[in-house]
Amino acid sequence: MINIGIVGYGYWGPNLVRNFAELPGANIAAVSDLDSDKLATVQRRYPAVRTTNDFRSLLNDPDIDAIAIATPVNTHFDLALASLRAGKHVWLEKPMTENSAQARQLIDEAEQRNRVLLVDHTFIYTGAVAKMGEIIKSGDLGRVYYYDSIRVNLGLFQRDVSVISDLAVHDFSILDHLLGEHPVAVTASGTNHFPGTPENLAYVTLFYESGSIAHANVSWLAPVKVRQILVGGSKKMITYDDLEPSEKIKVYDKGVSFTDDPKKIQEMRVGYRTGDMWAPKLAVTEALRVEGEHFIDCIENNKTPKTDGHLGLRVVELIEAANQSMRHKGETVYIHQSRGRAS
Amino acid sequence: MINIGIVGYGYWGPNLVRNFAELPGANIAAVSDLDSDKLATVQRRYPAVRTTNDFRSLLNDPDIDAIAIATPVNTHFDLALASLRAGKHVWLEKPMTENSAQARQLIDEAEQRNRVLLVDHTFIYTGAVAKMGEIIKSGDLGRVYYYDSIRVNLGLFQRDVSVISDLAVHDFSILDHLLGEHPVAVTASGTNHFPGTPENLAYVTLFYESGSIAHANVSWLAPVKVRQILVGGSKKMITYDDLEPSEKIKVYDKGVSFTDDPKKIQEMRVGYRTGDMWAPKLAVTEALRVEGEHFIDCIENNKTPKTDGHLGLRVVELIEAANQSMRHKGETVYIHQSRGRAS
Amino acid sequence: MINIGIVGYGYWGPNLVRNFAELPGANIAAVSDLDSDKLATVQRRYPAVRTTNDFRSLLNDPDIDAIAIATPVNTHFDLALASLRAGKHVWLEKPMTENSAQARQLIDEAEQRNRVLLVDHTFIYTGAVAKMGEIIKSGDLGRVYYYDSIRVNLGLFQRDVSVISDLAVHDFSILDHLLGEHPVAVTASGTNHFPGTPENLAYVTLFYESGSIAHANVSWLAPVKVRQILVGGSKKMITYDDLEPSEKIKVYDKGVSFTDDPKKIQEMRVGYRTGDMWAPKLAVTEALRVEGEHFIDCIENNKTPKTDGHLGLRVVELIEAANQSMRHKGETVYIHQSRGRAS
Amino acid sequence: MINIGIVGYGYWGPNLVRNFAELPGANIAAVSDLDSDKLATVQRRYPAVRTTNDFRSLLNDPDIDAIAIATPVNTHFDLALASLRAGKHVWLEKPMTENSAQARQLIDEAEQRNRVLLVDHTFIYTGAVAKMGEIIKSGDLGRVYYYDSIRVNLGLFQRDVSVISDLAVHDFSILDHLLGEHPVAVTASGTNHFPGTPENLAYVTLFYESGSIAHANVSWLAPVKVRQILVGGSKKMITYDDLEPSEKIKVYDKGVSFTDDPKKIQEMRVGYRTGDMWAPKLAVTEALRVEGEHFIDCIENNKTPKTDGHLGLRVVELIEAANQSMRHKGETVYIHQSRGRAS
Repeated sequence: MINIGIVGYGYWGPNLVRNFAELPGANIAAVSDLDSDKLATVQRRYPAVRTTNDFRSLLNDPDIDAIAIATPVNTHFDLALASLRAGKHVWLEKPMTENSAQARQLIDEAEQRNRVLLVDHTFIYTGAVAKMGEIIKSGDLGRVYYYDSIRVNLGLFQRDVSVISDLAVHDFSILDHLLGEHPVAVTASGTNHFPGTPENLAYVTLFYESGSIAHANVSWLAPVKVRQILVGGSKKMITYDDLEPSEKIKVYDKGVSFTDDPKKIQEMRVGYRTGDMWAPKLAVTEALRVEGEHFIDCIENNKTPKTDGHLGLRVVELIEAANQSMRHKGETVYIHQSRGRAS
Repeated sequence: MINIGIVGYGYWGPNLVRNFAELPGANIAAVSDLDSDKLATVQRRYPAVRTTNDFRSLLNDPDIDAIAIATPVNTHFDLALASLRAGKHVWLEKPMTENSAQARQLIDEAEQRNRVLLVDHTFIYTGAVAKMGEIIKSGDLGRVYYYDSIRVNLGLFQRDVSVISDLAVHDFSILDHLLGEHPVAVTASGTNHFPGTPENLAYVTLFYESGSIAHANVSWLAPVKVRQILVGGSKKMITYDDLEPSEKIKVYDKGVSFTDDPKKIQEMRVGYRTGDMWAPKLAVTEALRVEGEHFIDCIENNKTPKTDGHLGLRVVELIEAANQSMRHKGETVYIHQSRGRAS
Repeated sequence: MINIGIVGYGYWGPNLVRNFAELPGANIAAVSDLDSDKLATVQRRYPAVRTTNDFRSLLNDPDIDAIAIATPVNTHFDLALASLRAGKHVWLEKPMTENSAQARQLIDEAEQRNRVLLVDHTFIYTGAVAKMGEIIKSGDLGRVYYYDSIRVNLGLFQRDVSVISDLAVHDFSILDHLLGEHPVAVTASGTNHFPGTPENLAYVTLFYESGSIAHANVSWLAPVKVRQILVGGSKKMITYDDLEPSEKIKVYDKGVSFTDDPKKIQEMRVGYRTGDMWAPKLAVTEALRVEGEHFIDCIENNKTPKTDGHLGLRVVELIEAANQSMRHKGETVYIHQSRGRAS
Repeated sequence: MINIGIVGYGYWGPNLVRNFAELPGANIAAVSDLDSDKLATVQRRYPAVRTTNDFRSLLNDPDIDAIAIATPVNTHFDLALASLRAGKHVWLEKPMTENSAQARQLIDEAEQRNRVLLVDHTFIYTGAVAKMGEIIKSGDLGRVYYYDSIRVNLGLFQRDVSVISDLAVHDFSILDHLLGEHPVAVTASGTNHFPGTPENLAYVTLFYESGSIAHANVSWLAPVKVRQILVGGSKKMITYDDLEPSEKIKVYDKGVSFTDDPKKIQEMRVGYRTGDMWAPKLAVTEALRVEGEHFIDCIENNKTPKTDGHLGLRVVELIEAANQSMRHKGETVYIHQSRGRAS
């Protein structure tokens, strides 16, 4: 049984509490928040859980094995570092930190202390992303030509981070999982339509050494909610519509085959292929539960999380690069290969 | 009655012939194509129409008032210039020319000779684009925050032009019609997945002095066909799904209102508004017929076409700028204001 | 503050508990169920709520004002009658009772004792049905020509009642609310594909004196979930798709107008009209909460519920008639006008 | 080369002319219509085709091998009988005749004279219906539990026939093709909302000896166009959406399995199964072309058409039975097995 302290009961915290409360291997020892009203809500819903305004009391509690942090991003680094130094395992909301230097320091701290550091990129634990990963890894899709994501809605404007940190962050983690390759360059355009606010709409393009290209169209200013991804390969193509209740993933037996014969290229001979479509059944367990069980398993069996600090760092690097490009009128920003990518 | 000679009976030419054949004010005098098999098809379908391999014979025919050109883009300039110099009115397929210098020369030639020069940007004549234009011009949408277009499918690869010239060209003309403003800068990213072929997938962003931003996602490599545009304004927002059989245009009474009060901005006070949705009935006359009647009207009454050479030129400038940016890794390309934008 | 005892913590009971727990004017005094495991769940989630295996103890508790009954339909009559006789107000799951004689007896009991008897036809409290009611009552739809419902999915087979009691029951209550008219006749066809089980698929047609016709297609055996209603009027038509996340109700300015001129009828002159479509914004408060507040208001202010025993009875009469017709190969079953329809 | 005379150039005739004009094995010898304006249109479009107001002249023309009849249904019998007696093969629009006695007489006449008699039930020649037939015949679907069709739109009211003859006729032919079984009983309800006009909305239920049930919901009075069929089997289920541009047919690996164990039945043990969905690629050749080639093949090689007079008769019998039930308040009408069903 892993005893968990949860920090932050704002937007995402209640999901963490609900999830860990139902997890057989976990016990919620305490919940911390600065807002006493929120703690009162926790008390009413979970009378057995200790609540506190003082985050430090969690660190000092020897019964607490792990700290889950669901606070604003500008507090992530301090809270996570203190937790690791107190010998706790850490579950950290995405994006991991405000910048990549902080992310690297957290990775080092966790590795030196041999603590689990899981970054909560929940999408990686969905049945849909898992199935896409399987299909790509099996080679059925062939070479990945492109990844194209639209993630727009009439969203909550955030005070301190751009729409890239809020929405494109999901694409960065999914891409990391699917492609097993880090981009070499990023360009981004975006705009804030209201003075003094972060960008509410952005277009990000990622370039890969293999020739793959990825694009994310993210916005808080769309009249309709769209969550659609296309992945095109040399053999098959996938659509992923996250708002579809059942058939989220569709695999199309469609493709384009080019000849390498120079004369044929001259003539632009393209062979089209269209065939069946197939919508595989997906695992339906809630992603957060899968992720919670994985966190417990990593702690108990000294394993590395699928969404470890290195993945978290690579995502932060892409956010940094995309924001930098966006604020310099779309200039190309080159990415230096991070440590930790094994494959 | 306007006598028309049509040049080119390939992909689009048959539509022009069918359309002008049914137009009360028009008469097809002749069809020219280099391919005799295609001319034989014309003969079988329209026994009364003269066919010829020799485009020059159309120029020399004093009964022919206008020439409609539906040939590959690299022939547009020569054919259109010769036609204008022969005193003919010209209907010219989009994109108008290979480069903006050619487009300017055609405009000059048409103006000097007082001939009608219509560039066939068909979308401008659809009920859907007309309705969007009305809504924006009436002020109901408020200030235009963004235009976002997805135009992808498993398309015919073209030998000589990129997907920007093939698909984004529609967005460039629609934007010109809707916004009454020319972009000040363009960035574009794209890729060709097959050696020696033009880009088959591209992302283009247009920046406007007013703060509006526009984006077009175009691809010949998508498993599903999508033709969707979002237009977001300060008061209302529009979706335009061209594949929807009846309700193509939906107007959402949704918006975001920001306060200008500095203290409020501090707190990021955003007021959301969500209300009814409204799908206006659209004119259902085929766009090509509307455009054909407009061409006849312009010739007979000495009017300037809605899609005149200046609009055609502005579109060519955007294609040039987008291709230039795309081939320089997304660098920002600035647009110099063209002549001819009255508003 | 109304003290409520809730009987039954199976499929629907947890929703009632959650709903009343959050309602300002209500307090859950006790929950009763025969299954101790379920009571343990209640205890864990709501430590302050008393739980009991003995329904009678609720009746004897003078602090309890009202009893909410969410048990199998064959227990409804006994439990509700006992509750009313104990002087409690009653919230009763739909369908109200197994037969109309029982329903009449409950109505009498409630009226004699001046107790509130609300039958939980939740759909009547949705924003969508409320909006449809407004549109019809305002006269905007014109004369109602037809109501056509499809309510199918791969559903839970029920042991004791047919799919009519499970699914068509919703249409019966919605129709009662919308039309203000009781059908004069019913026909139904259906089948059970498995020996010894109730009908899993049925088609029910209702005939009205005004000439309106209604039809419900209900099934537990469909591969996809569908919840769609069409309502056609002489002036406008409505579609209601309950699975649509936002635009559930669409109002079409479409219609057919017939001339009454006998000569014209000879020639079958039909005038079609097609115009705009409009999707009104709907109230988004959860229906169960609206219904809970209404129940409290009826108790405190001695009002008659929108979904009172008379509505519940009329629905039970239609279930009886439809089942009778279905079991006699679709013979027409005539309905005798019930008491209690005021309008 | 088969020489064909076509009678009737109204709604469907132009499709027949276009189709036979493009068919390699066919030659259109003449087109007959009472309306000279329509014949003028034929002349303009097909200058080589002879036109006539006199249907008899087609019968007397020894060069004509076959007559295709696309006239109102009340003329079908006379025209087809005269054509067969003149020794011509016959292509006859659906529904075949006004009543089953006429249909039987045409079958006898065709058989005695050894002429091909094809009834134009076009749906049978679509890729979608062919694929559904394959799946059912292969046994993959298991036992067919139900067939459920919705075929509604804002339609052209017909003067002389009910919506059953216009729309449900398609379901009757598709069911005949798919099930290889004729219904034993029919019930139907419907209404005409305008005095002196045929029913514009109807619900038809067909009962089969095997326990299968079929239902068709047809209407000319719906604000939206729907063409959807569900077919549920013991192993798999199919949806067929004819308005879907590409994935018309979806096969769901979903089902319900009941145990036959009496004790288990007691407990209502139902096993649900949900798995992948699969959208097979469909043949895309226009159905009318497939049907035309089949007609030519039947004539040249003395074959029996898939949609022969016997199928046409069975469909007419169902129309008769459904109209009879509908006009007697939904009474059950029993069907006597027709001749000619071999399987």
